[in-house]
Amino acid sequence: MQISLEQMHSTLLKLFLNYGFADAKATLLARTFSESTLDGVNSHGINRVPLFIKYIREGIINIDAEAQLAGAFGLMERWDGHGGPGIVNATKCTTRALELAKNHGIGLVALRNTNHWMRAGSYGWQAAEAGCMAIMFTNTTPNMPAWGGKESRLGNNPLVIAIPRDGGHVVLDMAMSQYAFGKLNEYKLAGKKLPFAGGWDQHDQLTRDPEQIISTMRGLPIGFWKGSALSMVLDMLAAVLSAGESTSSIADKQMETGVSQVFICIDNARFGDGSIRESVLRDIIEYTHRSTPIAPGMRTYYPGEKTRITRQKNLKEGMMVDDGIWEKVTALAGD
Amino acid sequence: MQISLEQMHSTLLKLFLNYGFADAKATLLARTFSESTLDGVNSHGINRVPLFIKYIREGIINIDAEAQLAGAFGLMERWDGHGGPGIVNATKCTTRALELAKNHGIGLVALRNTNHWMRAGSYGWQAAEAGCMAIMFTNTTPNMPAWGGKESRLGNNPLVIAIPRDGGHVVLDMAMSQYAFGKLNEYKLAGKKLPFAGGWDQHDQLTRDPEQIISTMRGLPIGFWKGSALSMVLDMLAAVLSAGESTSSIADKQMETGVSQVFICIDNARFGDGSIRESVLRDIIEYTHRSTPIAPGMRTYYPGEKTRITRQKNLKEGMMVDDGIWEKVTALAGD
Repeated sequence: MQISLEQMHSTLLKLFLNYGFADAKATLLARTFSESTLDGVNSHGINRVPLFIKYIREGIINIDAEAQLAGAFGLMERWDGHGGPGIVNATKCTTRALELAKNHGIGLVALRNTNHWMRAGSYGWQAAEAGCMAIMFTNTTPNMPAWGGKESRLGNNPLVIAIPRDGGHVVLDMAMSQYAFGKLNEYKLAGKKLPFAGGWDQHDQLTRDPEQIISTMRGLPIGFWKGSALSMVLDMLAAVLSAGESTSSIADKQMETGVSQVFICIDNARFGDGSIRESVLRDIIEYTHRSTPIAPGMRTYYPGEKTRITRQKNLKEGMMVDDGIWEKVTALAGD
Repeated sequence: MQISLEQMHSTLLKLFLNYGFADAKATLLARTFSESTLDGVNSHGINRVPLFIKYIREGIINIDAEAQLAGAFGLMERWDGHGGPGIVNATKCTTRALELAKNHGIGLVALRNTNHWMRAGSYGWQAAEAGCMAIMFTNTTPNMPAWGGKESRLGNNPLVIAIPRDGGHVVLDMAMSQYAFGKLNEYKLAGKKLPFAGGWDQHDQLTRDPEQIISTMRGLPIGFWKGSALSMVLDMLAAVLSAGESTSSIADKQMETGVSQVFICIDNARFGDGSIRESVLRDIIEYTHRSTPIAPGMRTYYPGEKTRITRQKNLKEGMMVDDGIWEKVTALAGD
């Protein structure tokens, strides 16, 4: 069904208030879940709300927890999320990294003891809107084997890189797995094979069968050994900088919680050459856009471009939301 | 043939002095090319020396150029490499980023107008030896299509992430292409197909045939659309932060030059918890090492682990160097 941004926002606001969130937090959560859905990321927007509520009911997410400063050295800070809602903690840490960047040129905030931040890109868009570049990442529960090994020992550890641009921000939002588990589910429901291998089957063979991968929970890192290595170092950076948990200890928990995240913001406007930035970015984008399509109907995009197209379409036409999901959400909201 | 570190260093030192380099620069070049070879990266060590000399002869590399400060805002600096040797410029900028990190917690140096830095990992090892984490990257000439496009429009833009560790530094050194062109050449010479698709053939199909990829010069990004996007944003960050050239303008040159690079160093010892760092890293490494091998003879490694094994072996046994390459190098050295 088609839902407008306003409708979703007001339903979610009611829902979060019902669940006891303070006004400001309920508003932030309603806005973030709605905007992720507006941008077409239903998997970490509206579709995820019932699971988020389950986490609250099971006492894994503490709705009143406030992230607090746990250590500081100038432009580097370490925060403790105290098991609060991931969106609230991550937004606060992004805001703080932006403040540090505005003061020092760069700001780094490392956050421990937090929960899933939902759509990684949300914080990249937040930074870009504030005129800063950003490099951000989180660790997760294990869902991919390290290259050469059999059991899942690495998280898919989403990485965000954002670059502000007058003509539309560049925002990369990329997990280290070839396919998100949400995407595997879509292929499974459609009865389709993946275009490329996406994980391991029960006989330790790479497979394009989404059902097999969902059952083994052994996703394939992008670029095989390369994404495996990149995923591992992101976990290391996050756990060391925050003095928090790594995928190795998150693995011991029944449900994913206590993750570690890093928010680096760079105020490149400090160099005072916004016009150079715009022309450099335009050159790169035009150069790639000028490619001959490799197959009919294909074209190149810069990271964030499809999001922008989807956002504009959804603002006009409303957001496509699964009927069953919307029914669950409205029931939770008491509508 | 087998060459000792001392023998290679003294031959290269003679060579670089012959070509007119000042003492300190000749020593740095000899050391860096030798150490890359010691670590098993012959492709960007000894094998690359003849091409480096060709660049000097053609006047693309200016042996006397000194990188100079072109702009500064506290811990963020912009340097101009003035077309000097890539190793000399990159080492200088790493040293400067480390100084800034020691003073401020983080240091960022963006370098423009430089040349190929040879082995990317060299600067990650330099940072780790100095006790700092590092995130570094460079852009390059185009050698991969952007996802959806036909012509090569992206560089393979190597990325380095380093994390110091008492038990052996973690150093990721990773280009955005599934296979380096040096690796494709090895497979071609051995008459073998690649284990996985590595690029596009002349009919715009993905192929495991190294010869086809070398002839089209259209490599495959890691993770298909994902590595394509990551490569593009690294180019954007490098060109914007340095106010330097992007892959789109480097493409116009006969030979690759004028590249842009970024050196970010983080002095995480600032938080004063070295023992936490060691135990976190040990946990992650042990957790992945404990994986059951997915196939006989396989095991997991942390990034930098194989380098360390190779280094220790080569220190004991000498480095394996291609006879033809060594003949060329000794001829250039006038031996």
